[in-house]
Amino acid sequence: MQRAAALVRRGCGPRTPSSWGRSQSSAAAEASAVLKVRPERSRRERILTLESMNPQVKAVEYAVRGPIVLKAGEIELELQRGIKKPFTEVIRANIGDAQAMGQQPITFLRQVMALCTYPNLLDSPSFPEDAKKRARRILQACGGNSLGSYSASQGVNCIREDVAAYITRRDGGVPADPDNIYLTTGASDGISILVSGGGKSRTGVMIPIPQYPLYSAVISELDAIQVNYYLDEENCWALNVNELRRAVQEAKDHCDPKVLCIINPGNPTGQVQSRKCIEDVIHFAWEEKLFLLADEVYQDNVYSPDCRFHSFKKVLYEMGPEYSSNVELASFHSTSKGYMGECGYRGGYMEVINLHPEIKGQLVKLLSVRLCPPVSGQAAMDIVVNPPVAGEESFEQFSREKESVLGNLAKKAKLTEDLFNQVPGIHCNPLQGAMYAFPRIFIPAKAVEAAQAHQMAPDMFYCMKLLEETGICVVPGSGFGQREGTYHFRMTILPPVEKLKTVLQKVKDFHINFLEKYA
Amino acid sequence: MQRAAALVRRGCGPRTPSSWGRSQSSAAAEASAVLKVRPERSRRERILTLESMNPQVKAVEYAVRGPIVLKAGEIELELQRGIKKPFTEVIRANIGDAQAMGQQPITFLRQVMALCTYPNLLDSPSFPEDAKKRARRILQACGGNSLGSYSASQGVNCIREDVAAYITRRDGGVPADPDNIYLTTGASDGISILVSGGGKSRTGVMIPIPQYPLYSAVISELDAIQVNYYLDEENCWALNVNELRRAVQEAKDHCDPKVLCIINPGNPTGQVQSRKCIEDVIHFAWEEKLFLLADEVYQDNVYSPDCRFHSFKKVLYEMGPEYSSNVELASFHSTSKGYMGECGYRGGYMEVINLHPEIKGQLVKLLSVRLCPPVSGQAAMDIVVNPPVAGEESFEQFSREKESVLGNLAKKAKLTEDLFNQVPGIHCNPLQGAMYAFPRIFIPAKAVEAAQAHQMAPDMFYCMKLLEETGICVVPGSGFGQREGTYHFRMTILPPVEKLKTVLQKVKDFHINFLEKYA
Repeated sequence: MQRAAALVRRGCGPRTPSSWGRSQSSAAAEASAVLKVRPERSRRERILTLESMNPQVKAVEYAVRGPIVLKAGEIELELQRGIKKPFTEVIRANIGDAQAMGQQPITFLRQVMALCTYPNLLDSPSFPEDAKKRARRILQACGGNSLGSYSASQGVNCIREDVAAYITRRDGGVPADPDNIYLTTGASDGISILVSGGGKSRTGVMIPIPQYPLYSAVISELDAIQVNYYLDEENCWALNVNELRRAVQEAKDHCDPKVLCIINPGNPTGQVQSRKCIEDVIHFAWEEKLFLLADEVYQDNVYSPDCRFHSFKKVLYEMGPEYSSNVELASFHSTSKGYMGECGYRGGYMEVINLHPEIKGQLVKLLSVRLCPPVSGQAAMDIVVNPPVAGEESFEQFSREKESVLGNLAKKAKLTEDLFNQVPGIHCNPLQGAMYAFPRIFIPAKAVEAAQAHQMAPDMFYCMKLLEETGICVVPGSGFGQREGTYHFRMTILPPVEKLKTVLQKVKDFHINFLEKYA
Repeated sequence: MQRAAALVRRGCGPRTPSSWGRSQSSAAAEASAVLKVRPERSRRERILTLESMNPQVKAVEYAVRGPIVLKAGEIELELQRGIKKPFTEVIRANIGDAQAMGQQPITFLRQVMALCTYPNLLDSPSFPEDAKKRARRILQACGGNSLGSYSASQGVNCIREDVAAYITRRDGGVPADPDNIYLTTGASDGISILVSGGGKSRTGVMIPIPQYPLYSAVISELDAIQVNYYLDEENCWALNVNELRRAVQEAKDHCDPKVLCIINPGNPTGQVQSRKCIEDVIHFAWEEKLFLLADEVYQDNVYSPDCRFHSFKKVLYEMGPEYSSNVELASFHSTSKGYMGECGYRGGYMEVINLHPEIKGQLVKLLSVRLCPPVSGQAAMDIVVNPPVAGEESFEQFSREKESVLGNLAKKAKLTEDLFNQVPGIHCNPLQGAMYAFPRIFIPAKAVEAAQAHQMAPDMFYCMKLLEETGICVVPGSGFGQREGTYHFRMTILPPVEKLKTVLQKVKDFHINFLEKYA
């Protein structure tokens, strides 16, 4: 089903040379290779072609930056060239890129980064002492006291120590060991390294549907087997352990399920898992001998007053030694989300629990082939886990900035839910956390037919129309996976409040028109 | 043969939990799993083990950060703990990490980076105007004018334009197209993405022996076939096209050779290829329909007065349209080497020529799964390709710093060659470029026997002894590949001149002792 939607999706999108492997110039190249009028100047067939390339790589799909985003880029170019549109700008609500949407960096983080980058500034009176203290500490741990040296493959030692101390604080004293911390190039890098090292061809990897498409992409690359478990849309996208049981039983017929991926808070769904749910999942993983992979990059992004973030690590330890000494777990975090939104620095970490020492050795080996994660991203990660504390010079400003970002996100989460639910044919679950809405949209039968005529998934057709008519770029639900016959899109809640209101109003107007047009 | 050396190598190294998959604690874990005295608290067998993990990942080897480097880390810890050694510090001459060896960053580069990181500094009078101009230009091209936003997966547009302009200048006017430029996370990332996308299981990938072990690692991960061609040690490590012919003919019996990797200037060999050689290689690639992969990260590191760097791209175009419109080529560069040595920022680019448009689409897709290369590394790459020019405020200081680094490297290249060749039993080819010596060492039969008794490759045994007795960390030739029965090590020439002299003297003394001991 997922696969069928994907196949439909492959056939769509604009025919430009850069759009996902279909182009007119390629046809021209092939034609000239056939003609060979003047062999000494003709274009030969290419060595590297869709046919000859790695088929696993070819199978990879990644909707968050897929055809709709390429189309958005084309429209932006047209606007720049003065071509008239019913809107004046493209609003990229397709990706959780806070600073691109105008969110200001946390001052303290950038001060420390600037000091690390250009240590002459350590003498400048315009930088606060607590920032200088952090910068000196990071630099002292770097080769040649410079961000320009390679770090250890696992990451700078003192930053791994700070991460461990942060986790210990976060989890109310459950100890974290710096040896279990690996700094990574964003969370994506850690996730793909762990999945590709741990799995092999025909290994079953369980992922939620809807999912963040990094998972399906890595599974394709690896030629592993994607095992879908469905989140319960009728129940605020909750994870139900009975659904996990169904999925694993069915999967056992054709593969060896070995990895269970969890995204909490959810992407694209925004649900925040209850402590009870996490306990059930851990017990299930223990029972079924599954490696648990907990994507917890939105751990700071919880908005619903009834919800709290519980880390898998903490719950694991609270469940007692049978679990805490047996269940293999990797948890991921990143500088890109939370309140800092430092996506560009590609900072992240993973913590591994109960990983076999031999596998830890293999992991370091694999990381060392790429030498090390960006050291500037590592430094950014350090500030995320080691921010100013009460009594420090920068504490007040830092707290103000942090609260402002998180308070605004909470406000926008509520606003988005409320406004979407006022539109006939749109249903939106509460945005308990993360930074996306994933509303369900009703697409009339006539629109489904029109989409099929364009060889598009119906929600891709819907999102393309939305983009073309309003300039708003969102990602169709088929890119994340959804129950057959249901349609959704993912939209970030990152635009500033007033702009977000306009965006939501435009989606509303578009949707009502769309329903009328295809009634 | 290569494989045999690798197998021997696998058996060596210190038995610590983190050392490449052999550990005592794992044995303990298995034992406790067997005992199961108190099942509710016993440790179960792990899900992820050497047996269950991805065998291709397990097969990966990476000597530059292999067992010898882990041993170096242990010795450093022992020194810190006050354990007496015949030396006071470990000298890490195993990796081309210039700033870790005391090389100072180029001031202009770090000024621009600091301005981009913390744009408040744009108002500061202590930064030169040309640095501010560059920073403003980079920021304007970033989402939300911030390094904290994701960039396009292919990299920031204006930086790709600057790279193209740089290549055009470098190649005397041969045009470069920004659409063919992909910014990457260091060069390693670009190389592995291209090899893994282009090859598939059983694709033959030709690599030089000795090689930089990133290549063999990526080939292992991909389950492709490594096809060795040997550089000619008797002829200053030159590449002989007849050897390429031999290698490709033999390979055709058991695989489909499709990619030819070239490292110029050579790593670990330091040879700089002549224009004639490059022409021969391009003709060979054309003839045999091989995708050319030119690792040119040392393009600024040429020291021999008789040598000059010629880019494959330039020679390709000068050879005429049959070649320039048919030969598929990818060339790699990085911020890590040259005179800037900014390894930690993980900046790099690749330029692709004659890549099928469909494959370019696939490449962007693959890059987009990891979202984007670190934007700070992209900014660093921009300064590398767009440095101050005559007439600009920072030009004089920049030129002075650049000349100082390159002049020192040239001096150290000569010094190293001369000193090594004074030692009986060591022969060192001229270091024409890059930043390594790869001397051939004579290892007496008794030492070979002793190594075998320790289940080590003879040159690993030699390098371990060198490390234990002098604190100098170099990488055995078996990690790069070498003709059977010959032994080498790779040592960087990055320590400051006086320190390098001490290092070379210590190696000399060690070597003479070693010969005596095992005579």
